[in-house]
Amino acid sequence: MEIIDEALNKAHVAFLSYKNFSGKKKAAFLRAIADEIEALGAALVSTAMRETNLPEARIINERGRTTGHCRMFADLVEEGSWVDARVDTALPNRMPAPKPDMRKMLVPIGPVVVFGAANFPLAYSTAGGDTASALAAGCPVIVKAHPAHLETSKLVAAAIEKAAIKTGMPQGVFQHVHGEGFEIGQALVKHPFTKAVGFTGSLAGGKALFDLANQRPEPIPVFAEMSSINPVILLPETLLRDAAKTASSLAASITLGVGQFCTNPGLIIAIEDEALNSFVHALATEIQKVVPGTMLHQGIADNYSKRLTQTLAQKGVKTEGQTTTQGNNAQGTPLVASVSADIFLQNPTLSEEVFGPFSLIVKCKNLEELTKVVSRSHGQLTATIIGDEAEINKHKVLINVLIEKAGRLIINGVPTGVEVCPSQMHGGPFPATTDSRFTAVGTDAIKRFVRPVAFQNFPESLLPDELKSENPLGIWRIFNGEFKK
Amino acid sequence: MEIIDEALNKAHVAFLSYKNFSGKKKAAFLRAIADEIEALGAALVSTAMRETNLPEARIINERGRTTGHCRMFADLVEEGSWVDARVDTALPNRMPAPKPDMRKMLVPIGPVVVFGAANFPLAYSTAGGDTASALAAGCPVIVKAHPAHLETSKLVAAAIEKAAIKTGMPQGVFQHVHGEGFEIGQALVKHPFTKAVGFTGSLAGGKALFDLANQRPEPIPVFAEMSSINPVILLPETLLRDAAKTASSLAASITLGVGQFCTNPGLIIAIEDEALNSFVHALATEIQKVVPGTMLHQGIADNYSKRLTQTLAQKGVKTEGQTTTQGNNAQGTPLVASVSADIFLQNPTLSEEVFGPFSLIVKCKNLEELTKVVSRSHGQLTATIIGDEAEINKHKVLINVLIEKAGRLIINGVPTGVEVCPSQMHGGPFPATTDSRFTAVGTDAIKRFVRPVAFQNFPESLLPDELKSENPLGIWRIFNGEFKK
Repeated sequence: MEIIDEALNKAHVAFLSYKNFSGKKKAAFLRAIADEIEALGAALVSTAMRETNLPEARIINERGRTTGHCRMFADLVEEGSWVDARVDTALPNRMPAPKPDMRKMLVPIGPVVVFGAANFPLAYSTAGGDTASALAAGCPVIVKAHPAHLETSKLVAAAIEKAAIKTGMPQGVFQHVHGEGFEIGQALVKHPFTKAVGFTGSLAGGKALFDLANQRPEPIPVFAEMSSINPVILLPETLLRDAAKTASSLAASITLGVGQFCTNPGLIIAIEDEALNSFVHALATEIQKVVPGTMLHQGIADNYSKRLTQTLAQKGVKTEGQTTTQGNNAQGTPLVASVSADIFLQNPTLSEEVFGPFSLIVKCKNLEELTKVVSRSHGQLTATIIGDEAEINKHKVLINVLIEKAGRLIINGVPTGVEVCPSQMHGGPFPATTDSRFTAVGTDAIKRFVRPVAFQNFPESLLPDELKSENPLGIWRIFNGEFKK
Repeated sequence: MEIIDEALNKAHVAFLSYKNFSGKKKAAFLRAIADEIEALGAALVSTAMRETNLPEARIINERGRTTGHCRMFADLVEEGSWVDARVDTALPNRMPAPKPDMRKMLVPIGPVVVFGAANFPLAYSTAGGDTASALAAGCPVIVKAHPAHLETSKLVAAAIEKAAIKTGMPQGVFQHVHGEGFEIGQALVKHPFTKAVGFTGSLAGGKALFDLANQRPEPIPVFAEMSSINPVILLPETLLRDAAKTASSLAASITLGVGQFCTNPGLIIAIEDEALNSFVHALATEIQKVVPGTMLHQGIADNYSKRLTQTLAQKGVKTEGQTTTQGNNAQGTPLVASVSADIFLQNPTLSEEVFGPFSLIVKCKNLEELTKVVSRSHGQLTATIIGDEAEINKHKVLINVLIEKAGRLIINGVPTGVEVCPSQMHGGPFPATTDSRFTAVGTDAIKRFVRPVAFQNFPESLLPDELKSENPLGIWRIFNGEFKK
């Protein structure tokens, strides 16, 4: 594809200069992106609302998150310690062999292709976390616009391009391509100058890109965030006390944004007893009150309806509560169902994501069965335990198992709402993501787009500033084995 | 395969306890491994010599490196800061939404399968860098013994097992399996409890394991170190002055250990001029004097002979010098050849590794052509520039290009000899390794076998010690954005 070849050639040329830009210069670019996005004003908000059916408050909130992470990465690269610099000075007289001067730091991996998410038209799309972290790392970015919010994407792309010109970035540091069909995406992933891929979307889509990237003559990393049902475990003693409160916070989390969050709690696991009965009753009552919302686009609404019907048709699945408001076919029906643990364990369909305002309650006979359900769980973005400190302390084994299943463990909270901070981990074992070793949210998201390079016996004048002996950037380093500035 | 299923089940059970062992306990285990290897005494040295044809001094040196890295990882995990802990405390009154308490650290990924290297019977085999770093991370290890040094592997495995018992490690923390054929290796990589693979060997072998791992229902990371020809660039002005000295150090590096190092300088790139002529003459003279050595095993000797014949049969390849000592068919013939850059660029065969005491000199018409050869190079473990500071400063673009090609850049040295230290990077873009983001040597090798997990809203009693507010382990952390102990 000529247009893709041209784009990647441009990105490659841009990379050869952009990768050497100082943290300060990259920070100016990232801050200008935030400024230009804000300068789009009401036009951006109304366009995004029209294209995604999301309410104004949500779009404004998401815009804040988008400009927020641009500025967060600006601060990170301006400060500079993120490159994990290590310096080991020479020991020319060491016996039996002299020790050479060795230094190491993280460098950008090369042009990155980003496929934005349908469900985050701003924060995980054109100027989303993938784009911002890749640009911060020193990688040019090519965004494949999401067809469901093309106009929003074009507005944001124009803002980024404006910011690039204003701050003197090389041509090709950011490019925006669009078009229907798989060909463009495939050509982007297969191009030899593409060095990494960021993707947020379906399991089928992410896995296809992952396979394509691994079949290249030179395989490249794909960071695909795909599928998670985010189990929530309710401990019995605590539930006995807090059934109503727990039901109310989970109902809100299940139906937030018409259930279109990757961290939506799609699975609730508990022991069958009186407390669970009152919880289920309370949850059903809450869900009945929720008014159906219009989903992101018709394809997502159709898919939700299909998957919901499919799930409810499985043997032993019982609807516990659903909205009493009749919706139209563009809207997602809030609904909770239940199934016994033994049937759940036998039917793999029930472990698959139903993307929308739905949750399945798995009723276990006892703690042993509950632990079995948890142990057999697929990889997840999050796992939650609702229980007070004393009760969880009695069942620490659950945490020991859950650590293997999810990237983020939550106690007494809901999984929706992903804080953007250094300690965030948004990613988990397959199929939640294709690479459980990296986060898509928070400062460490930059680590996806870098690789370490060692410099042996380099004269000071040829070393990057980050590795010069006198530490001109004043960054934290491991210097002869010691953390210091 | 029943035996493999049993081994992985054991490893999985061991993992559930071993992963929670303190750094202190894991350090005791790693130090005991070093002690037990030393306690094997002369028997280990003579067995390894017999199985690999390597000389006593080399085996003793390698044993030192092996026990050295066991103790290095012991120190690393005992100190504890390697887990990259981050703490972001709650801000319950933040507007518009409260900030939850978020903490994050690296946790072990699960059971690791290690395929040792033929060319490092100790340092990259049974108790090699992969095993030591995986055990340090908290991952049980299953080593598939290299058939070329099975007895050596058994001795070392027994030492590790002894150390495990002495230091109270769970059964199954280390296991040793052997057998001919691909079935065992395939079954190990495909088993659902296997969570990562370490491999050192051929491109074909490493790529096959990589593909197998990616085709699993749950793909897992493979760290395969495979194929590198380690280009050395000679800058003309410096060469004019140092031709003889450079020839002598390169001849030693090319033929070290019968050329059986992954960092062997297999490609020398220079501009065709008088200086290069005297360098080639001097190198040829040095190579003539080198006595052929017996290679690791007959398969490697046969392969070297085949690949050498194949390379020398390519159009335009000229033998510049070879040993004057007649060897036998178990030995590798030291030989250097040359080819013009334009032919080299047209013939991809010439860019493939010839594993043994061989190097190909690529003669370029000018600096432009030299830069083109460098730009088209495959991924490498190392890249070297021989040139004084002033001359390299005139050609900084070479470094800018080489950073994309190799994991370690060397100035005025030889690539053989890999220092084990925090700033080492032994790994590079494909096909040098399957994952350029990780090193196989040095303290950061531990990063291959971990993943980050975030803990949200955890009471202190349920947090790992690494993340408790009062920092009981006294490790370096990023605490509310600040590096501190």
